Amino acid sequence: MIVAGATGFAGALAAHLLWRHPDFELVAVTGRSDVGRPLQELYPRYRVPLAITELDPGSLEAIDAAVVAYPHAAAAPTVGTLLDSGARVVDLSADFRLGALETYERWYGPHPRPELIARAAYGLTELHREAIAGAAIVANPGCYPTATVLALAPLARAGLIADVVVDAKQGISGAGRAFDEQTHLSMAGENILPYKVASHRHTPEIEEQLAQLGCDVRVQFQASLVPLDQGEMASCYVTPTRPVGEQELHELFADAYAAEPFVEVAGTVPGTREVLATNYCRLFAAADGHTGKVLVFSAIDNLWKGTSSQAVQNLNVMFGLPETRGLA
Amino acid sequence: MIVAGATGFAGALAAHLLWRHPDFELVAVTGRSDVGRPLQELYPRYRVPLAITELDPGSLEAIDAAVVAYPHAAAAPTVGTLLDSGARVVDLSADFRLGALETYERWYGPHPRPELIARAAYGLTELHREAIAGAAIVANPGCYPTATVLALAPLARAGLIADVVVDAKQGISGAGRAFDEQTHLSMAGENILPYKVASHRHTPEIEEQLAQLGCDVRVQFQASLVPLDQGEMASCYVTPTRPVGEQELHELFADAYAAEPFVEVAGTVPGTREVLATNYCRLFAAADGHTGKVLVFSAIDNLWKGTSSQAVQNLNVMFGLPETRGLA
Amino acid sequence: MIVAGATGFAGALAAHLLWRHPDFELVAVTGRSDVGRPLQELYPRYRVPLAITELDPGSLEAIDAAVVAYPHAAAAPTVGTLLDSGARVVDLSADFRLGALETYERWYGPHPRPELIARAAYGLTELHREAIAGAAIVANPGCYPTATVLALAPLARAGLIADVVVDAKQGISGAGRAFDEQTHLSMAGENILPYKVASHRHTPEIEEQLAQLGCDVRVQFQASLVPLDQGEMASCYVTPTRPVGEQELHELFADAYAAEPFVEVAGTVPGTREVLATNYCRLFAAADGHTGKVLVFSAIDNLWKGTSSQAVQNLNVMFGLPETRGLA
Amino acid sequence: MIVAGATGFAGALAAHLLWRHPDFELVAVTGRSDVGRPLQELYPRYRVPLAITELDPGSLEAIDAAVVAYPHAAAAPTVGTLLDSGARVVDLSADFRLGALETYERWYGPHPRPELIARAAYGLTELHREAIAGAAIVANPGCYPTATVLALAPLARAGLIADVVVDAKQGISGAGRAFDEQTHLSMAGENILPYKVASHRHTPEIEEQLAQLGCDVRVQFQASLVPLDQGEMASCYVTPTRPVGEQELHELFADAYAAEPFVEVAGTVPGTREVLATNYCRLFAAADGHTGKVLVFSAIDNLWKGTSSQAVQNLNVMFGLPETRGLA
Repeated sequence: MIVAGATGFAGALAAHLLWRHPDFELVAVTGRSDVGRPLQELYPRYRVPLAITELDPGSLEAIDAAVVAYPHAAAAPTVGTLLDSGARVVDLSADFRLGALETYERWYGPHPRPELIARAAYGLTELHREAIAGAAIVANPGCYPTATVLALAPLARAGLIADVVVDAKQGISGAGRAFDEQTHLSMAGENILPYKVASHRHTPEIEEQLAQLGCDVRVQFQASLVPLDQGEMASCYVTPTRPVGEQELHELFADAYAAEPFVEVAGTVPGTREVLATNYCRLFAAADGHTGKVLVFSAIDNLWKGTSSQAVQNLNVMFGLPETRGLA
Repeated sequence: MIVAGATGFAGALAAHLLWRHPDFELVAVTGRSDVGRPLQELYPRYRVPLAITELDPGSLEAIDAAVVAYPHAAAAPTVGTLLDSGARVVDLSADFRLGALETYERWYGPHPRPELIARAAYGLTELHREAIAGAAIVANPGCYPTATVLALAPLARAGLIADVVVDAKQGISGAGRAFDEQTHLSMAGENILPYKVASHRHTPEIEEQLAQLGCDVRVQFQASLVPLDQGEMASCYVTPTRPVGEQELHELFADAYAAEPFVEVAGTVPGTREVLATNYCRLFAAADGHTGKVLVFSAIDNLWKGTSSQAVQNLNVMFGLPETRGLA
Repeated sequence: MIVAGATGFAGALAAHLLWRHPDFELVAVTGRSDVGRPLQELYPRYRVPLAITELDPGSLEAIDAAVVAYPHAAAAPTVGTLLDSGARVVDLSADFRLGALETYERWYGPHPRPELIARAAYGLTELHREAIAGAAIVANPGCYPTATVLALAPLARAGLIADVVVDAKQGISGAGRAFDEQTHLSMAGENILPYKVASHRHTPEIEEQLAQLGCDVRVQFQASLVPLDQGEMASCYVTPTRPVGEQELHELFADAYAAEPFVEVAGTVPGTREVLATNYCRLFAAADGHTGKVLVFSAIDNLWKGTSSQAVQNLNVMFGLPETRGLA
Repeated sequence: MIVAGATGFAGALAAHLLWRHPDFELVAVTGRSDVGRPLQELYPRYRVPLAITELDPGSLEAIDAAVVAYPHAAAAPTVGTLLDSGARVVDLSADFRLGALETYERWYGPHPRPELIARAAYGLTELHREAIAGAAIVANPGCYPTATVLALAPLARAGLIADVVVDAKQGISGAGRAFDEQTHLSMAGENILPYKVASHRHTPEIEEQLAQLGCDVRVQFQASLVPLDQGEMASCYVTPTRPVGEQELHELFADAYAAEPFVEVAGTVPGTREVLATNYCRLFAAADGHTGKVLVFSAIDNLWKGTSSQAVQNLNVMFGLPETRGLA
């Protein structure tokens, strides 16, 4: 097992989780900067003593799996190299999340390896467990689609979504290890900042997933940065196709997630602290008698279930391990 | 001028602003706790040296105005006493915000002084300047209605709102000087917490104001606490009654607020830091080509424009002063 | 195993760590409030499903150990009851930390069970491992003494401390689940607040421990609250009894802690994030050529190594388990 | 009046304060980046509409004063150019803070304009008011020396300091508009980070000022970053040359600062929130009966009194205005 691109937030946390995983052996962490330094010098808290190396395609024979944590477009060629050497890959980028090539290219530009798209499963474990188990590539979802699709899936399957507004809030770690105005504590602190207004890359990913559940809807998705480190709340406001009562809603969600080890249907609205540093998604659904709308609140840790611990959950599925292995 | 109830966050800030105001003379700050202590012992940063006294109705003859910062239902009797002694009042509570008594009583219980409702103007300065100038009571709006109604007024007047979702986020000062789970830094920090799901007292206040502008709509309003001190963002998602383009939207907002000293129509989405510790409301409107919805983002400081500095803005209007006096 | 007083921050975290511990069985969590509610309703993040019960001395026969998380003076009688029923106790209060009764009574008032003091070992695992292994009561150290004594022990043993100033900074969780001015985010946020100036209860605890190492010194100890949740830094400024060079210092600390699983001697000054949510203490020592002083920086998580995870470390020692069990 | 280097935190705040100053006319803000953009695009909160220009020495004839907010070594040549054109300068860099050239060069490298040092006054207003009034260059102090020297001056003058440890804590704005590990909210948040151990550039500045007051002492100075925006606390631990009692201490500080508009001698230990966004320094001194040491706590806003508002205070002195002008 290796993590390619371990110097960013997502890759570093994946390395941490895999390093202490009882069944996987992390043998290398690669990066394009800081080569030769132990990863724990960059991320002391994660205590991964492996030195950062450059990714050397010639030495990959013995690798059976990899987590790739590269930026969009940079990931696909590396995923291809890893596949060629026989490894299976969980890719944290957007490169294989969208089934429709033209959608990808509208948002991200030319796809470097379009022929590989067909070999990828969408890595929202709860919805695509079987495909993930057998896939060569698992495209780990974006953190916003993770929280949003888990919130909306029961309603989408039931044909209940006529219209939906998703207002998502996220901590600063969602911006990654970028050093700029959005992450400087003196600018991001004491601030609430909506961003990418009316134009968020995660919208097509959410819509494609809902469509696969039989729900054809244009999603109004909006994200805001708020001053914390890790945490994400997707607040979903659904105009239902017909009136929905509390009891029906309750059963819909209870049934959908009864068997899921990492989805908790809560009896009251959760705060994101309740899932901090865990792989849980915590959901609360309510019917608003005044407006007739259905509200769903979905709390995750954007770096964990939204990214790196979900990658481990997928690796567990890919290698036939109990899904909670190394994550409890 | 006095501030009654100066020991809470709102009253203390009002006292601070009035103490340094060039045209008003703050002569007393009253409270039910900490009597005898200088206000600046409780709020050192505000540097108001007046000692806290009990409100003594017998000594009010010389008072021409008061800010009342009492809890809901406790405020109305005191407002009545002050009126009787000849003072004009800006009331920070909800007691006189709603024109419809039955709406008030559904949310807050029996009204202690219903006969006074007719003497109150709604203190959203930008919308009710003339009524405020002559009113005996000015009912200072809630902070959520302030941000929301300023965001929606241009669309409401133009008959453009078919449906609307308002997702508002606020710093912890919005919970006031309450000491509990919602305000403890170790619980409120690193958290995003929606609250009062499908049941927020501010909804009827917003709906009543929109109705006065000719817009009859049920508002889906939802608030969340995020870990900062002062700051509020109302993100409004409007389904328009007909398609609205960027240009029309731009003109609608520019025209509506061109003459307003404290409303800024921004060219890009604002963060709440941009209005921190000011009386400004900063707005940004955008049309979403994908969904056809209209988005409006409204940033205020919940303690300033949302509460105490708007009270001063109203006092300026009530006493014929330039509206920006003591606030620039 | 039970946790008595599980509704506070320290008890709740202890319950969390013991609930997931591979070798201990947590059978009860007790509290004086919230009886009947699952602990995970109060602390959702900790996911301990046990319902809170009142401590019933009649039902303690089968209990072999307990963590007591009561306030000072309230703890000792309960510790006595538990001992009588045959359990061994890790006490998180100050009641058994001080060997000298008169010192205790000067700071905390009359001791409820002074005859038990002789049965207690001081629970700084690294210094008192043997005594802890056999003790009936283990007095878990205060978080400040934990960080400070680990920082100073190598110098104290070597007779190198002529004078010492300790400036400790701590996150708000150190104030516990108290709801007041010191913990309200709008007051504790954007603040740096020294407290208990020239009069800190932890001073005698530190001095007693240093004296046991042969170092008789009056410690200037000062604590400040800073706006984070969990984290503590003790910055120690030692005037040495003779000049000390970098090399000697390096060897002194390396030798002292080479075999310790939870003390890391760092090559550069640590931030508290490096030990967040861990049982580690991370130390860095430096000689200041300009002043001749020796500086030692000691970072811990005040709730973990400073309190609850150190309690688990002590329980591991008491029951002959590997010290890192349930803590890695 | 111009601000040269207005795109950094210090220059931008100076521009904000001068823009709204009743007696100064800010005519230009210069910068090496973002030329042509209104300053308020970079710092919306400060609402300075002037466009950023390049500093053009040819157009400086009409300028009577400038604030220079350049990095060390870059400042001196610009200060020289401004002097040549007839302007008086408040320089925020370290270039003219030290009287001893060799000390400067040891810490900062070759001095670009050493011949100008003699024309500079040290801009700690409270200590050097007369020199500032007549100086061509005022070297604004570092924020750490501001807090520290104000704390220690009464003791230094009285010959009471035998030894001193200064442990200073500061918010992240102290690192300026640098985008790196020390300022990223996900790294600086939930962290306490000592830095520049045993080697801080501000030590010689503090020692030189104390020496001018007759106190020859080597200062143990250590700074730590804590997760807030603006705020600085210098905690000073003085070993006195002879026993000092509370009463003497009280009088010493009361006498020293009785006439100072911006120094408050507090009756209890202050938090930095008490001086947030003000030009105040708030001091508290105490004698520790246990150790015999004298403790002084000094709270300032590092960006205000520590930098930009002190620059305005100095400009007021330089131009014969009341010292509090534009700062109350």
